[in-house]
Amino acid sequence: MLIIGEKINSTRKMVKQAIADKDQAFLQKLASDQTEAGADYLDVNSGAFPQEEVELMQWLVEITQQASDLPLCLDSPNPAAIAAGLALHKNGRPIINSITAEADKFPKVIKLVKEHDALVLALAMGDDGITKTTDDRFAVAKNLIEDICNQGVQPEQIYLDPLIQPVSVQNDFGIIALETIRKVKQHFPTANTTCGLSNISFGLPRRADINRCFLVMALAAGLDSAIVDPLDNELMKMVKIADALLGKDRYCKNYIKAFRSTEKK
Amino acid sequence: MLIIGEKINSTRKMVKQAIADKDQAFLQKLASDQTEAGADYLDVNSGAFPQEEVELMQWLVEITQQASDLPLCLDSPNPAAIAAGLALHKNGRPIINSITAEADKFPKVIKLVKEHDALVLALAMGDDGITKTTDDRFAVAKNLIEDICNQGVQPEQIYLDPLIQPVSVQNDFGIIALETIRKVKQHFPTANTTCGLSNISFGLPRRADINRCFLVMALAAGLDSAIVDPLDNELMKMVKIADALLGKDRYCKNYIKAFRSTEKK
Repeated sequence: MLIIGEKINSTRKMVKQAIADKDQAFLQKLASDQTEAGADYLDVNSGAFPQEEVELMQWLVEITQQASDLPLCLDSPNPAAIAAGLALHKNGRPIINSITAEADKFPKVIKLVKEHDALVLALAMGDDGITKTTDDRFAVAKNLIEDICNQGVQPEQIYLDPLIQPVSVQNDFGIIALETIRKVKQHFPTANTTCGLSNISFGLPRRADINRCFLVMALAAGLDSAIVDPLDNELMKMVKIADALLGKDRYCKNYIKAFRSTEKK
Repeated sequence: MLIIGEKINSTRKMVKQAIADKDQAFLQKLASDQTEAGADYLDVNSGAFPQEEVELMQWLVEITQQASDLPLCLDSPNPAAIAAGLALHKNGRPIINSITAEADKFPKVIKLVKEHDALVLALAMGDDGITKTTDDRFAVAKNLIEDICNQGVQPEQIYLDPLIQPVSVQNDFGIIALETIRKVKQHFPTANTTCGLSNISFGLPRRADINRCFLVMALAAGLDSAIVDPLDNELMKMVKIADALLGKDRYCKNYIKAFRSTEKK
């Protein structure tokens, strides 16, 4: 699976403070730590500073790329901030995080996806917000994928996020996300799925345990990618085990290799 | 989910030795430990002694019932051993482990299920052994459930076991089991599913981690029960988390309660 490291996100208190202080060393350590831990992409978000989001996105992209060769997942609801990040992006194929079916933003983000031949994280929501049943959620996801493809973007470029809401708020929020992932993979086998994992455990104790358990369920439902904490060793171990159990690790070679290297430590 | 404690099984070396030595205290401790840990049923198996299986099944049932009030899962390929255990069973509704579509055994076991109004663990195999694709496995499961129901047994009495084989042997053995569980629950919503979990990890290092991960996947696919080690605290925690994530724990109350009681220790 594609691991998008979640750490460099200004909605996290310590990161917000580090950005306010221009604490480059702290932020670059988040970049290098996640890279060493096995992330495939690094998420970069400066949205907690709406007045300066564009400039701060530029700064974050620059300092992150000094510390890591990974491609970035440019995370903003503001197309201007995404565009600023894309202009500086230099390692591989960027991910635009995100597009939705909202009428005012859709064409602006599609334009950026096409100009930069980027991957795009597509949130299953439109102008009416987040739907409350599996059927409605999938209908939004299906329309969004079709709308994006109708603009000349390939399904392989799309990472559909079913939008995970906390299971502590409504009992079936986990099931809605899992079933949406399953249906998207059935209807669009070449499109990808992703999610912001940690929302599932909001409001509950021992969130990391819940996140890991839900990630395993989502991988079994067909999840291709997730925005997660790659510094969570237990979670990264679960990903390797899940790959083996889902037939993605021939003769369980990667699992056995990872296990042996852990034993040596 | 229904937890069937796996410990009192003569195919395990220490248990075989304890049975040979008539070490009642050792075996009764397995019974009481599993009961305290939250098992719903205790599996009892004397099959490693084919010459004395019937008498040893009687002895195991008696000493287990002295140590635990739980109902038993009488585990034998030999209908005579099952019958002997059923005659002594006194706590609740027994589980017969197991019935298959094999022509010589099917009518004998069905007779016992009906006489004792028992639950029955149904293995998805027939005279041709274990099938190698999801479609074939489900076809065997479907026919077996229909054959059992045609004898006047209710679907609610059936616990279909898809038969889990090691993922180290064939890459898609995990997927075959998961898909069979999912299809059985779709086609027979009132029938139950179960599995002997630990087969999945045979031949691999760190088996407990793999077992837990696969249990989570199977629960998300619709698993109702499993034969597991209830003394594995991490596994029992996963079951509680999975219940919450799958909408079976209103407001996550059981999860929060379990977490708090753990914190006090």
